[in-house]
Amino acid sequence: MSIITIIGSGVMGSAMSFPASDNGHTVRLAGTMLDREIIRHASKTGWHPNLKRQLPEDISYYQLESLEEAIDGADVIIGGVNSFGVEWFANEIIPKLPKHIPVLSITKGMLNQPDGTLLSFPGYYDKKAPGRLFCAVGGPCTSYELADRDQTCIGFCGNEMDTLRMLKKTLETSYYHISLTTDVEGLECAVALKNAYALAVTLAVGLSKKRDGAIHYNSQAALFGQSIREMRKLLDFFGYNSDNIIYGAGDLYVTVFGGRTRYIGTLLGEGVPISDALQTLEGVTLESLVIATRTVQAVRTLITKNRLTAASPHDFSLSEKDFPLLLHVDELINHNATVNIPWESFTTNHPVFASG
Amino acid sequence: MSIITIIGSGVMGSAMSFPASDNGHTVRLAGTMLDREIIRHASKTGWHPNLKRQLPEDISYYQLESLEEAIDGADVIIGGVNSFGVEWFANEIIPKLPKHIPVLSITKGMLNQPDGTLLSFPGYYDKKAPGRLFCAVGGPCTSYELADRDQTCIGFCGNEMDTLRMLKKTLETSYYHISLTTDVEGLECAVALKNAYALAVTLAVGLSKKRDGAIHYNSQAALFGQSIREMRKLLDFFGYNSDNIIYGAGDLYVTVFGGRTRYIGTLLGEGVPISDALQTLEGVTLESLVIATRTVQAVRTLITKNRLTAASPHDFSLSEKDFPLLLHVDELINHNATVNIPWESFTTNHPVFASG
Repeated sequence: MSIITIIGSGVMGSAMSFPASDNGHTVRLAGTMLDREIIRHASKTGWHPNLKRQLPEDISYYQLESLEEAIDGADVIIGGVNSFGVEWFANEIIPKLPKHIPVLSITKGMLNQPDGTLLSFPGYYDKKAPGRLFCAVGGPCTSYELADRDQTCIGFCGNEMDTLRMLKKTLETSYYHISLTTDVEGLECAVALKNAYALAVTLAVGLSKKRDGAIHYNSQAALFGQSIREMRKLLDFFGYNSDNIIYGAGDLYVTVFGGRTRYIGTLLGEGVPISDALQTLEGVTLESLVIATRTVQAVRTLITKNRLTAASPHDFSLSEKDFPLLLHVDELINHNATVNIPWESFTTNHPVFASG
Repeated sequence: MSIITIIGSGVMGSAMSFPASDNGHTVRLAGTMLDREIIRHASKTGWHPNLKRQLPEDISYYQLESLEEAIDGADVIIGGVNSFGVEWFANEIIPKLPKHIPVLSITKGMLNQPDGTLLSFPGYYDKKAPGRLFCAVGGPCTSYELADRDQTCIGFCGNEMDTLRMLKKTLETSYYHISLTTDVEGLECAVALKNAYALAVTLAVGLSKKRDGAIHYNSQAALFGQSIREMRKLLDFFGYNSDNIIYGAGDLYVTVFGGRTRYIGTLLGEGVPISDALQTLEGVTLESLVIATRTVQAVRTLITKNRLTAASPHDFSLSEKDFPLLLHVDELINHNATVNIPWESFTTNHPVFASG
């Protein structure tokens, strides 16, 4: 059995303790400076106040000051910070980790590059600290349901298949099913795209709520289909493995049904401008909105630069017409526009892709 | 304005009267021999007892005996029968229609061919009565929500783009958005596949209902993602336009949320064998189950014949390993097996598709 140290005890980092503990590993959960109350509470009672679940009994808890102790002898590090904590993790934590230990990042999102491409967090860590084994998790998984041991299929990505195989062996359980891929940017891009598109799909929830108070699915399905079309275009443009769309679609599916992304998307769909919608969050910065904004900015840059020959292995360029839904989300979240979904722009009267 | 005659007054045929009537066309709704009660009722009150909606006020109603009158002078025929009525429609109705009038079929499903391929209903009608203008609708659209004028994005397919353009102009409204494609078999295949996969996704609803009474989404999303993977494989294998996956995915999305497919899938997911589940339907033959069975049979035939060179423009063949979820649905609905989802078979440790 191994020693698994989770650094960052937010909901997803903490939920990873379930497969780790169920496999009989020693699990150490270390909080960041933002997690003090969680660690204090959970170390006394086992109850995670944000995950709202009882954590596995055999976990040891560490405040940030005891991080060295938490790391000592660990076989696997799980990077449990959210995307706001990535720089801190890179600067403050990674230098403290022995070089040979694999780091599995659960952080969602990507970083914009000046050329319009998106960089995964393992890619970012690699640049900051070359020569280590950075891997990441992507795919449809909410922390609450992982903690409930609901059947979950996700992907682990990284540069080294041997490391990925070791991580799979360490963490796979009867309910946590792990695919492996070396297409790091492809997997991370597919799942990062879902934040903007989950806002887009839930606009239909707000629209129908405002119209007649009922939940309708034709309109949600139309936006879901258009989301998949636009996500596929980006994956294709970058030359990523096209099978990654299943993670993007699955993650979109799971995100549409709950949480604050749906909450905000529904408000926008009801015609509330983002400035008013954000006020209801009382100052909380919504990670999914930040990731959505990054995605939109990247696509805007890509379109502007029309990066036909630079990045794409395909002979098509990108234009505004390829992303009518994403660009409407941009209008809504970055320019305070009122919802006005360009339905007719989703229709086609020619093949959009060549066959296959 | 045009005269639009809908033949078959089931829920979807009748719902087509909404965009037709909203565009100011003369709408004639003709019942089959199975629709007598609907026509009798609706012609008196305007209320459709199965759609459970008030139909547009200006519709004329026709029993089967007055079909000739309903057809006389029509500019467009909408074929509103379900898949059980296709042969009757081909043999009894099509010969009565003037040759130059386009027929838009709303029938879902496809017909199995001996070689494992699937034939669309427009393709079937073409074989039975060559030289006519057969078109079809495919995509995410439930009749109830079309009648509620929920925003809907679907595709019209047919061999002639001019005819398709005329149909779009005739039927598009501010809520009914029509894409056009000559890839008839591709669109119809994508949407026919959703019946089997909607059963598959809703297995997770039953599983979690039985386990803890709650609705979970990780497991639904895992099955949704695997469904998209398997659907894409079939579309790719046949060489259909890969963008059709958006209709398959959208239609899957809308089907998962209601109706009898979800009902049966949930029961199967709870561990009820299909023989018992069907008894709760009290003798009603479920169209989606029949279509699902056909899909599974076609895939079984394709795998058995391993039709690498015959039908596929790609250099890959198909095997059981490509369709673990569909073949589990086969076990459930055709061999009375008890649910036992092969989760781990959904994991991959290599690229499933080449890029793009």
